[in-house]
Amino acid sequence: MVFLKSAVLLLSLAIIIYGKQIHSANNFSTKAYDPNWPSLDSRPLPAWYDQGKIGVFIHWGVYSVPSYINAWFWWSWLSDGSQAHDDFMKNNFKPGFSYPEFAPMFTAEFFDPDHWAQLFSKSGARYVVLTSKHHEGYALWPSSFGFNWNSLAVGPHRDLVGDLATAVRKTDVRFGLYYSLLEWFHPMYVNDMANNWTTTEFPELKSIPTLKELVNKYRPDVIWSDGEWEAPDTYWGSEEFLAWLYNDSPVKDTVVTNDRWGSETRGQHGGYYNFDDRYNPGVLIPHKWENAFTIDKRAWTYRREARLEDFMTPEELIANIVVTVSCGGNALINVGPTKEGTIPIILEERLTQMGDWLEVNGEAIYNSVPWNYQNDSITEGVWYTANQATTKLYAISTKWPGKELILGSVEGLTAGTSITMLGSSGELEWELNGSPARGIKISVPRPDENASKWAWTFVINLDSKGTQV
Amino acid sequence: MVFLKSAVLLLSLAIIIYGKQIHSANNFSTKAYDPNWPSLDSRPLPAWYDQGKIGVFIHWGVYSVPSYINAWFWWSWLSDGSQAHDDFMKNNFKPGFSYPEFAPMFTAEFFDPDHWAQLFSKSGARYVVLTSKHHEGYALWPSSFGFNWNSLAVGPHRDLVGDLATAVRKTDVRFGLYYSLLEWFHPMYVNDMANNWTTTEFPELKSIPTLKELVNKYRPDVIWSDGEWEAPDTYWGSEEFLAWLYNDSPVKDTVVTNDRWGSETRGQHGGYYNFDDRYNPGVLIPHKWENAFTIDKRAWTYRREARLEDFMTPEELIANIVVTVSCGGNALINVGPTKEGTIPIILEERLTQMGDWLEVNGEAIYNSVPWNYQNDSITEGVWYTANQATTKLYAISTKWPGKELILGSVEGLTAGTSITMLGSSGELEWELNGSPARGIKISVPRPDENASKWAWTFVINLDSKGTQV
Amino acid sequence: MVFLKSAVLLLSLAIIIYGKQIHSANNFSTKAYDPNWPSLDSRPLPAWYDQGKIGVFIHWGVYSVPSYINAWFWWSWLSDGSQAHDDFMKNNFKPGFSYPEFAPMFTAEFFDPDHWAQLFSKSGARYVVLTSKHHEGYALWPSSFGFNWNSLAVGPHRDLVGDLATAVRKTDVRFGLYYSLLEWFHPMYVNDMANNWTTTEFPELKSIPTLKELVNKYRPDVIWSDGEWEAPDTYWGSEEFLAWLYNDSPVKDTVVTNDRWGSETRGQHGGYYNFDDRYNPGVLIPHKWENAFTIDKRAWTYRREARLEDFMTPEELIANIVVTVSCGGNALINVGPTKEGTIPIILEERLTQMGDWLEVNGEAIYNSVPWNYQNDSITEGVWYTANQATTKLYAISTKWPGKELILGSVEGLTAGTSITMLGSSGELEWELNGSPARGIKISVPRPDENASKWAWTFVINLDSKGTQV
Amino acid sequence: MVFLKSAVLLLSLAIIIYGKQIHSANNFSTKAYDPNWPSLDSRPLPAWYDQGKIGVFIHWGVYSVPSYINAWFWWSWLSDGSQAHDDFMKNNFKPGFSYPEFAPMFTAEFFDPDHWAQLFSKSGARYVVLTSKHHEGYALWPSSFGFNWNSLAVGPHRDLVGDLATAVRKTDVRFGLYYSLLEWFHPMYVNDMANNWTTTEFPELKSIPTLKELVNKYRPDVIWSDGEWEAPDTYWGSEEFLAWLYNDSPVKDTVVTNDRWGSETRGQHGGYYNFDDRYNPGVLIPHKWENAFTIDKRAWTYRREARLEDFMTPEELIANIVVTVSCGGNALINVGPTKEGTIPIILEERLTQMGDWLEVNGEAIYNSVPWNYQNDSITEGVWYTANQATTKLYAISTKWPGKELILGSVEGLTAGTSITMLGSSGELEWELNGSPARGIKISVPRPDENASKWAWTFVINLDSKGTQV
Repeated sequence: MVFLKSAVLLLSLAIIIYGKQIHSANNFSTKAYDPNWPSLDSRPLPAWYDQGKIGVFIHWGVYSVPSYINAWFWWSWLSDGSQAHDDFMKNNFKPGFSYPEFAPMFTAEFFDPDHWAQLFSKSGARYVVLTSKHHEGYALWPSSFGFNWNSLAVGPHRDLVGDLATAVRKTDVRFGLYYSLLEWFHPMYVNDMANNWTTTEFPELKSIPTLKELVNKYRPDVIWSDGEWEAPDTYWGSEEFLAWLYNDSPVKDTVVTNDRWGSETRGQHGGYYNFDDRYNPGVLIPHKWENAFTIDKRAWTYRREARLEDFMTPEELIANIVVTVSCGGNALINVGPTKEGTIPIILEERLTQMGDWLEVNGEAIYNSVPWNYQNDSITEGVWYTANQATTKLYAISTKWPGKELILGSVEGLTAGTSITMLGSSGELEWELNGSPARGIKISVPRPDENASKWAWTFVINLDSKGTQV
Repeated sequence: MVFLKSAVLLLSLAIIIYGKQIHSANNFSTKAYDPNWPSLDSRPLPAWYDQGKIGVFIHWGVYSVPSYINAWFWWSWLSDGSQAHDDFMKNNFKPGFSYPEFAPMFTAEFFDPDHWAQLFSKSGARYVVLTSKHHEGYALWPSSFGFNWNSLAVGPHRDLVGDLATAVRKTDVRFGLYYSLLEWFHPMYVNDMANNWTTTEFPELKSIPTLKELVNKYRPDVIWSDGEWEAPDTYWGSEEFLAWLYNDSPVKDTVVTNDRWGSETRGQHGGYYNFDDRYNPGVLIPHKWENAFTIDKRAWTYRREARLEDFMTPEELIANIVVTVSCGGNALINVGPTKEGTIPIILEERLTQMGDWLEVNGEAIYNSVPWNYQNDSITEGVWYTANQATTKLYAISTKWPGKELILGSVEGLTAGTSITMLGSSGELEWELNGSPARGIKISVPRPDENASKWAWTFVINLDSKGTQV
Repeated sequence: MVFLKSAVLLLSLAIIIYGKQIHSANNFSTKAYDPNWPSLDSRPLPAWYDQGKIGVFIHWGVYSVPSYINAWFWWSWLSDGSQAHDDFMKNNFKPGFSYPEFAPMFTAEFFDPDHWAQLFSKSGARYVVLTSKHHEGYALWPSSFGFNWNSLAVGPHRDLVGDLATAVRKTDVRFGLYYSLLEWFHPMYVNDMANNWTTTEFPELKSIPTLKELVNKYRPDVIWSDGEWEAPDTYWGSEEFLAWLYNDSPVKDTVVTNDRWGSETRGQHGGYYNFDDRYNPGVLIPHKWENAFTIDKRAWTYRREARLEDFMTPEELIANIVVTVSCGGNALINVGPTKEGTIPIILEERLTQMGDWLEVNGEAIYNSVPWNYQNDSITEGVWYTANQATTKLYAISTKWPGKELILGSVEGLTAGTSITMLGSSGELEWELNGSPARGIKISVPRPDENASKWAWTFVINLDSKGTQV
Repeated sequence: MVFLKSAVLLLSLAIIIYGKQIHSANNFSTKAYDPNWPSLDSRPLPAWYDQGKIGVFIHWGVYSVPSYINAWFWWSWLSDGSQAHDDFMKNNFKPGFSYPEFAPMFTAEFFDPDHWAQLFSKSGARYVVLTSKHHEGYALWPSSFGFNWNSLAVGPHRDLVGDLATAVRKTDVRFGLYYSLLEWFHPMYVNDMANNWTTTEFPELKSIPTLKELVNKYRPDVIWSDGEWEAPDTYWGSEEFLAWLYNDSPVKDTVVTNDRWGSETRGQHGGYYNFDDRYNPGVLIPHKWENAFTIDKRAWTYRREARLEDFMTPEELIANIVVTVSCGGNALINVGPTKEGTIPIILEERLTQMGDWLEVNGEAIYNSVPWNYQNDSITEGVWYTANQATTKLYAISTKWPGKELILGSVEGLTAGTSITMLGSSGELEWELNGSPARGIKISVPRPDENASKWAWTFVINLDSKGTQV
C-alpha cells in the first residue's frame, strides 16, 4: 500500500545513517580493541548517549576566581599579552600577583552538589560533564599527580569531582568529565613542545596517568577530551589510552568519548564528534556529533562583567537544541558556576526553562532520530525529528506560527493522518497546501490553549491508516 | 446627560482623595513650615512622586560582603545570637573576625553607574532610592561624620552616592536616598538608648548632621528614612529636621519623604506612608503610600545562597505593581547588588521585563489615579486605575483572561464606549454581561495578537459620546 | 668645719633647682587649680616621676602594619608625597589600597602583656608610656568616640590599653599613656584647621572627650600629650582639661603630664618638659624634663627595613640615659612592637641590658638629683649625679677609663673621703690630681674585677669626716 | 734537638688524622668514581671546606609564614596531631585553611640578597647553605619539577636561590644548598613508602631530577642533603647520584657534601659527616665533620614566639664554634629569616659579633687543624687548635681567665717560647706551673688591653728556638 511505503520512506534515511553507529550495549565486553584508529573507531557508541540528547556542561576552576572574560584568563594574560587582562590585574591586584595565587580564593563555600544535581535533573539533561581539569592544570579532585594544585589542597578543600559525582548519581543523570590533555604552563609540557613533541614526558608522566586515575576513581560515562590541538595523537598516546579505556577500564561498556585526541583527529576519530566549540552546522552530520555551547554566549565561565544581553533567551536556547537534535547532534549546554559554588540564578532559570520545555516537548527530542529533512522547505524555523519505534514525525517550530503552519517538506500523508500538538489536547485540522499541493497546512490553536512556550511541536502520526492524499 | 454624570462619577473618588495631597510645585517656596507635625503634614507632596509610580530601591553596603541571609547580618550575628550567622562566621572566617573587617572586601570593582542608570531608566522606574547608610552606619559617600567607616576610606575607594547620582541624572530618573537614622552599634546611640533616650548625643552629633550633609551634598528628591522605630520622633529631632528640609534645604521644592521619623509616626506623619516593609493591603489607602518590596522575596540584599524559587516571577512582580498602584500606592522595587558592583543578571532581567511591560502598559500606571473600585467584583486578578486628564479607565488583568473578560465593577457605559487593549490595535467588542446585566463582557483577542506579557490592560474610554446602556 | 660646708655646697644647686617643683604627694588633694597656666604650672610634679628616672615608651598602632620608615606613614604617603612611601604602596599593594585597610592586619596574635610587663620591669624602667592613640586616630582601646577605628573593632579584637595596664600593674612599674590631640585626617580636625581654628568641633566633640574617657577608664599616671603643634592651647581647651585632670580626675594626685598642650606651650607650660623629640641638650635644664628617644635611632616604630647599625648599642643607650639624668631629665626609651604583638628580640636585648646595667648602677640613677656640674671638666664622658639623702656624689664614666680616672670637677674632698665603684667591692685609692691640684685622680680596678658593663659609676661619699685636702 | 722533636710531636696527630682526607684539588678531575660507597668515600674532600671552618645556614621557606615553633610545622600539625599547632591554626585561620595556602603570604618584599651576602661575609663565614627545598617540597627556585609549588610561581615571585647565589658570589663566601630528599606529603613519596620502598617513582621522577636541575643550574659548592632517614640509600639512588656529582657535574672538583644519603649512611658514607643536628661531641672525630646548629636554640626557623633567652649569647655562640673546630669540625651556624625577607636584627647582631670575634681570633680558626689534645687538662673552657704551616698552637679560653691562665696540656716548651695573645700586642710572661711542673702558667693582661671579647686566644709559637724547660 502506498502509505506503508511512505512511512518506510519517511524514516529510512535515519535508520541508514545511525544504525551502524549506535548499538545496544550487550556486545561490548566481548571485543578487544586495538590501539589504532580503525579498530577504535569501529566501537559502537553506547546507546544511552544518542538517546539522551541533552547534557549540561560545567566550566569551573581557578579561572572562576578572576571570573573575567573567560576560562583562558591565564593564557590571555601571560601569553597573549591581552591589554584587558593586564589592566584587570594591574587595577585589582598587587604587582606580581600570580595566577596560582587565585586558587586559595576558590572557596566554594556555597557548593551544594545535591542542589546542582537536582537542577540538572530538572533541566531535562540526561548527562552532565564537569571540567575535571582545564588547561590551567588545576584538578578538581585530589589528584596524586597534582601536588598542591588541586581542589583538596588549595581552595575548596574538598573533592569537587567526587562530591558532584555522588550527588548526580542519586538522580537519573549520567556523570561525565571534561579533561584537558594539555596544561599551558606545565614545565614538562612546555619542554616537550620546545622539543617539537619528540619527547613525551608530559603525557607519559603527567597527563595520561592523571586521566587514568580519574577514570579509575570516578568512572565517568563521558570523557570529554580537550586541549589536544597542539600535538599529534601519537604524542598524547591517545590510541593506547582509548584501547585501555574500551578494553580494560571500569567504564568500558558505558563510556562515550569525543574526537579531541590529537591535532588531526577532530571530526576524524574517536567517539562522537565535537568538531569546534559551538559547532552547529544546520545540516545533517553523518556521524554522531555534539554541539557544546554556552548560555552566556560570550564565555564558558562565570564572568562578573556579563550583562543580560549576553545570555541566550529561552527562545534562543531551545532553538539551538532543536536545530542540533534535528541534525543528529546532542546538545551540551554550558553553565559557569561562581568561585563560591553557586550557579548564577539566570542560569538556574534558563536550565529550569529548558526543563519546562522538555517536560512538554521531550517526546520529540529524547530517543529521536533525524528525519529525511532537517528544516522545512517553506516555513523558516521549523525543524524535524522522528521516532523510529513509534513512527512519529515531529515538526518543531522555533517561532510561534500564528494561526496556520505550512510544512512544505511533509508530503504523501494519508487522509486520516493524525496531527497533534505537544501540550495541546485533540487533533489538529490539516489540509494539503495549495494547488498543486506543496506540503500541508495545519490549523494552529490559540497559544493560550497550548502548554508550551518558546517552541512548539507538531506530531504527525505516520502509521495512520488510509490512502495517501 | 447620563453619560457625562457617569464619567464624573467614575473618577470622582480619586479626585477627592488625592486632590488635597498632591499639588503642583509652584507654591512650595512661599510657605514656611513649623517644626510640628500639623504644619509639616500640611505640606503637599510634590506631584512628580505620585505621577511616577515606579521606583527602584537599592540595598548596597558592607552587608553585601558576607552576602548572606539579609542586610541585618551584623545584628543577627551579634545581638540576636542567630545560629545560622554564627555557623557562617565560624565556618568561613578566622576566630575574632569582626564585621567592620568586611569593609575592605567591599571592592565594587565592576561598579558601572551608567550601566545601572540605563538599566533603571529602561526598567520604567521614575526614581531610584539608594541606601546611603544602613543600620550598620557605613556611609556610601565620604561623610565627614564617618571617619574611616565610609566607601571612600575603606572598600570601594569611591563616592558611590555621588557617582550614582551623576549617572542617574543623565537619565530622566530622579535620584533619592535611603537613610537609617539609627546605627545599631554606634557607641553614642547605644549610650542614648541606655539612657532611655533622655540624652541625644547620637542624633545631635552624628545622625542628623550626617543627614543634612547628605542632603546638601547630593540634593536627593527622596529621603527614605528608616531605623526610627526604637526612639520617639522627639529624640531624633525629626520635626526640626523636616522643617529645615521643607523650608531651607536645597531640595525644599522637590523632595518627598516618608513616614519613618519616630516610634509613633508610621502611617501618621511625614510625606507618603510606607507603613511596614512590603506593605500592600489590597485596598485603597486614603493617603499617598508606597509599597517597598523585593524581587528576591526573602531579602533586601544580594544573598549568595538564594535560589531561583526565591525570586519573583515577572508575573508576580507585575501583579505587585498593579495591585499597589490600583490602591493608590507607588511601587519601590528592590534589588541587591553584589559587593563587586554588579546587579545579578536575574535582577537585570526582571527589571528589563518590568520595562518591557511598562513600555506597553505604562499608560495605565504613570499619572494614574485610583478608581472608585480597586479590584473587580467578579473577575479575580483584575485591578483598576484611571486617568483624570483623559477620563480613561484601565482594567488590568494579572492573568491571561482567555477569550472573554467579564468586568463586574464597570457599569453605566454608553453604547458607543470604546474599549481597547494596550498592545493591540483596534477596538474590542463588548456587551453587557448577563441579564439582568452585571457589568460587561469583553471579547479578548488571541494572545499572539497582543504585544503584552504577564498582565494585560483593557482601556475603557469614559468620554465616549452616547447613551448609557 | 670646712668639709661640712663643702658637702652642703656640693649639693646645694640641686636642692635649689628642684625643691620648688617636686613635692611629696600629701597636699595635692587640697588645692583647686584654675584653668590658666599660672595656676596649672604651680602644681608640683608628683615625686614618683623624678625619682623614677627611667621609662619605656611604646609606639604601637596601625602604622605597625606597613611597618615602614616610621609612624608617620599615612601622612608621608598622602600629604607629603613621599616617593619612598608611594613606591612602597605601589609595589606591595593593589591600587587604591587605603591606610585604614591596614587595620585588619594589625593582628597582635602574639601579644602577651605579662611578658611585656615583666620585660619592662626587668629593664629597670619605673614607668611605661603606651601610644593609646597616635596621629592616625586609631584607638588601642574600645573608645566610644572611635566607632570602628579602634583595636576592639578592627584588628586585634582586644583592649590593648586595658590588657597592658592590667599586666603592668602587677609589677612595680607605673602605667602611662601617650595621646595625640590631633588626628591628621579626621574630617572635623581638617575642617577646624580650614577655619583657622575659629571652630572647635574636633577638640570639643572628639579629642578632649576621648582623652577624658581614657583617663577615667585607665587612670594613667602619665599623660604624654602630643600632636598639639598646629593649634593654640585655647583651641584644644588644654587649660580646662588640665584643671579637670588636676582637680577632679581619678588620677589627680598621681598623674604627671608634659608640655605639649598647644603651639606655644613646649618648654613653657604643663608638667615636665619634653621640648622636641630626642631632646638631650647636655646641660642642666632648670625645670624637670624628659628625653624621649628611640633605640632604633631612625624611627619610633618597628620598621621591617631596619638594619643592625640603626640600633643603639648598649653603650649608646646607657650613655644617653646617663647624660639625660645628669642634666635633670628622665629618660623615656622607646621600643616599637610588631603588628603581631611581639617586641623584636634586639629590643628585648637592649632593655635587658639596660636592666643589667641599672641592677648594678641604679643607685646613681634612681632618686638622684643633678649635681653642681653635669659633666667633668677634664675627662670626657664622665657625668655626675648626686643623692641628697645619702650625700653621695656619682661620677659615671660612659667609657672604660683605663687604669686611672681623673675627675677635674671634684674638689674640696676631705682626706678620708671614701670612693668606691658600683659593682666592685672595697674602696678605691685616690689622690689630688697634679700640682697645683686640679681635681682628683682615682685608681681604677681591672675591669674583670667589676660587675658593670658599658658605663661605670664611681661613688664619692661626701659625708666623710676629715679635713679637706 | 729536643724542641724540634717536641714541635713535631705537638702537631703530629693532626697530620695523621687529616692528611688522608683533605687533599689539594689538583687531582680531582682525573679520577672516575664508581657508584658504590667504597669508591665514593675514597674521594678527598676539597680543601676549601676544612680550611673555611665557618658557614652560615639559612632555613627559609613556606614554614617562615606561620613562623611558629619550627620548620616542621606542616608535619607536626597534620601528622603528629600537635595540640599547639592545631590551636594555632584554629585560633588564627579560617577552618580548612591548608598549608599550601601559606605560600602566597611568603612575600619576601624586603629580601635584599646583597645585604645578606655582605652580612655573611662580615660574619666571617666562608660558605653559606640555603634550604633550596625543605621537607615541605616548596622550591626556592623555579623548578621544572615543582609546578606551582615554587618561589617564582607563588609567593616571592622571584628566584630566591639564584638571587642569593649571585649576591654571595660577589663576595669571597662560597655558595651551598641544602636539599631535602623527601617531601612529606608528595603523593609519589607517600605511595613509595606505602609500597615499603619497593617502588621508586618519587626519587626517579621527582627528587633526583630536581636535585640535578639544582646542581646544573646553580653549581653549589655544598650539597647539604637531608630527609634521607626513612628509606635506604638504594631507594634514593644516592650512589648513582654522587657518582654523577663527582664525575660529571659542573661542580665535580669543588663540591662537598655530607652524610645524609639513606637510612644507614649518617657517620658512615658521603663527604663530611653531619651525624645528627647540633652534633657536638666535645671529642676529636676521626673524619671531617660539621656541627650544624642554630642561634635560636629551639628552632631552625624564624619563630614569632621566640624570646631573648632562646637565643645564644655571643659567648655561647663562640664557645660552640671553638669546641667544634677544636674537635675537627666545621661550624654551620643557622639563621631563620622572616617571610618578608629580613634577617631578624638579633641574628644580624650575633653574626656581626661572630665576625668581630673572628676578625681578632680568626688566625686560630681558619686553616687550623686539631691538636693532640682538644680541651685543657686543668683549666676548664680552654680548647686547642693548631696550624701546621706556622707551627703555632692556639689555646682558646671561652671564659675570661682572670690574671693567670694555667694550661695543663702544654708541656715541653723551650725557654724562649713566645706566647702572645690575639688582640694584644707584646709577648706574655709565662712559667712552668707548680713543682713538679704540670703545664705552664701564663700572665694574662688586663682585659682593657685586649681587643677581643667573649673568648680569648693564646698563641704558643712552637718554632721558638731554645732549650726545653
